[in-house]
Amino acid sequence: MSNNLPSYLSISTSATQDLAQKIDHLQPDKYAFLVDEHTREFCLPLLNLDKSLTIEISSGELNKTLSTCEYIWQKMTDFGFSRKSLLINLGGGVIGDMGGFCASTYKRGIPFINIPTTLLSQVDASIGGKLGVDFNGLKNHIGLFQEPNAVIVDTVFLKTLSAREFKSGFAEIIKHSLIQSSDQWDYLINTPFEEINWETLIPRSIQVKNEIVTADPKENGLRKTLNYGHTIGHAIETYFLSTEKPLTHGEAIAIGMLIENKLAVQSGILSSNEEADIENYLSEIYQDRRKIPSYEILMKYLMQDKKNDNMGIRFSLLERIGHCAYDVLVSDDILKEVLK
Amino acid sequence: MSNNLPSYLSISTSATQDLAQKIDHLQPDKYAFLVDEHTREFCLPLLNLDKSLTIEISSGELNKTLSTCEYIWQKMTDFGFSRKSLLINLGGGVIGDMGGFCASTYKRGIPFINIPTTLLSQVDASIGGKLGVDFNGLKNHIGLFQEPNAVIVDTVFLKTLSAREFKSGFAEIIKHSLIQSSDQWDYLINTPFEEINWETLIPRSIQVKNEIVTADPKENGLRKTLNYGHTIGHAIETYFLSTEKPLTHGEAIAIGMLIENKLAVQSGILSSNEEADIENYLSEIYQDRRKIPSYEILMKYLMQDKKNDNMGIRFSLLERIGHCAYDVLVSDDILKEVLK
Repeated sequence: MSNNLPSYLSISTSATQDLAQKIDHLQPDKYAFLVDEHTREFCLPLLNLDKSLTIEISSGELNKTLSTCEYIWQKMTDFGFSRKSLLINLGGGVIGDMGGFCASTYKRGIPFINIPTTLLSQVDASIGGKLGVDFNGLKNHIGLFQEPNAVIVDTVFLKTLSAREFKSGFAEIIKHSLIQSSDQWDYLINTPFEEINWETLIPRSIQVKNEIVTADPKENGLRKTLNYGHTIGHAIETYFLSTEKPLTHGEAIAIGMLIENKLAVQSGILSSNEEADIENYLSEIYQDRRKIPSYEILMKYLMQDKKNDNMGIRFSLLERIGHCAYDVLVSDDILKEVLK
Repeated sequence: MSNNLPSYLSISTSATQDLAQKIDHLQPDKYAFLVDEHTREFCLPLLNLDKSLTIEISSGELNKTLSTCEYIWQKMTDFGFSRKSLLINLGGGVIGDMGGFCASTYKRGIPFINIPTTLLSQVDASIGGKLGVDFNGLKNHIGLFQEPNAVIVDTVFLKTLSAREFKSGFAEIIKHSLIQSSDQWDYLINTPFEEINWETLIPRSIQVKNEIVTADPKENGLRKTLNYGHTIGHAIETYFLSTEKPLTHGEAIAIGMLIENKLAVQSGILSSNEEADIENYLSEIYQDRRKIPSYEILMKYLMQDKKNDNMGIRFSLLERIGHCAYDVLVSDDILKEVLK
């Protein structure tokens, strides 16, 4: 099974031991941990290594900004970080994406290791080398592609998560199943949530993503299927980010998948039976029933999507369970109809 | 000859024609020019293409900052730049390095073309893919390696330069000769400055750099020889940058080469005869005789050099004309003696 995982990724049962081994291999002249207030409290103590150099930032997507990067770059400078120093990003997607971006651009690039501590970052951000930060409210607007020197996935960190955070990551597992693995989808709908075997499901889900990313690292084609649910989902996530009740990434992506399925049905490429099956499953897992913003509001966000070109907004839409099309132009009429 | 140039670089006699051809090949959905107040006035009119989208920044190293990047990223966003849009950097090293960095990180990377308009950027920044900006006074502290989609070198732009700017670029030609081509050095010392054939010398000098960069793109070894004169030179350039009389890059590098040659002589790796020959030639070209800052002041800057590790400050030093050693540790005693 591990043959289908990238060489830099370890499914670990002892993060301390694996990290010590990676450090021994890389031989950095010094290293520092990047953490937020949660991972400093709950995750850092699980690592039994020298932690004298630590950079702490405030958690949350609202802090995934260039100004936080400037703080991180300054700390690395203050620590006397050279090109042979190592940054270890201990946290969720924000820590991994932003820490990776800072490391990849500090003195034109130093090594970094990601230790994803959320289900979301273990099954999603851990693979694919997408790094970056938000810019004036636009998600991941500034960034680059660069694979980490190592990614260490250890389920021990998942015990530190709330149920809501856990379900946020689960949306990506559902997505991986829907776009690429009908077997995994069958497993999900036939297994009560409480009885899921995470030790097996997490590596399988990482494999699905890895196969796609390996086939198309620069997102010229197949990799775009990973954006299923994300075109609408990102717009909704961004919209609610500035409200008093932000959604988790997974909650937004679940809504995104529901709406994009309706676009697919209206465009005549997905059957309404399969759409209903997916809606039933998602509604059971995600109970948030809030009103989504109007067509006019969402369009403002959709126009900034990185996948667009001058032809219009391009979607990745399901054709059937286990298979996803990409670069699908959806007519404005259908968009208005579904988003009304 | 052109076989030794990178495939993306054209030595052009019509920048307009070559640029139009590159645009036709890349098929961007839109493109914009990045210029400063000088290149907008003197260089942009030499290009006979649609210039409706232009981003203008203030010239000079002091503006090579993240805050200027934020302005450029915002302009690209306002223009509705997609991943298929193209940024054309028309200017010297600051425009090329910073515009390239902004393009390479906008939506995780869009195409960019550099049209270097100074002698310095034609023979130096045009090759090697080093992109970036200064950070809190540290030169090129934040950046990455990425080759442009095209570089168009046309000597027509050099007519827009002052004599001082022209000589700034000439220092890199001298450096290329000293580290890698004793033939080119012989040509220089046997040819009065006014009689130099630039149409031949510029491509030859680019070739020297390209051979080095191709052999070692990530600066693990040989490429470090390009830092000859730059360890001391950068420190001096940075020091004078915040004074009322900043040096040009070339003036600082000329001083850097002189001082580093003295380090090489004191370390017993360069003959004092060759050192004297080089000093004679450089003193003829560069007439600035200012007092350089003390050992104590320069050390502050030297400690931040990207080539350092925890062993100390590493220099690229001449062993003889046409051959340069790298990763040379110079003792603190010799540094103090030479910089006193």
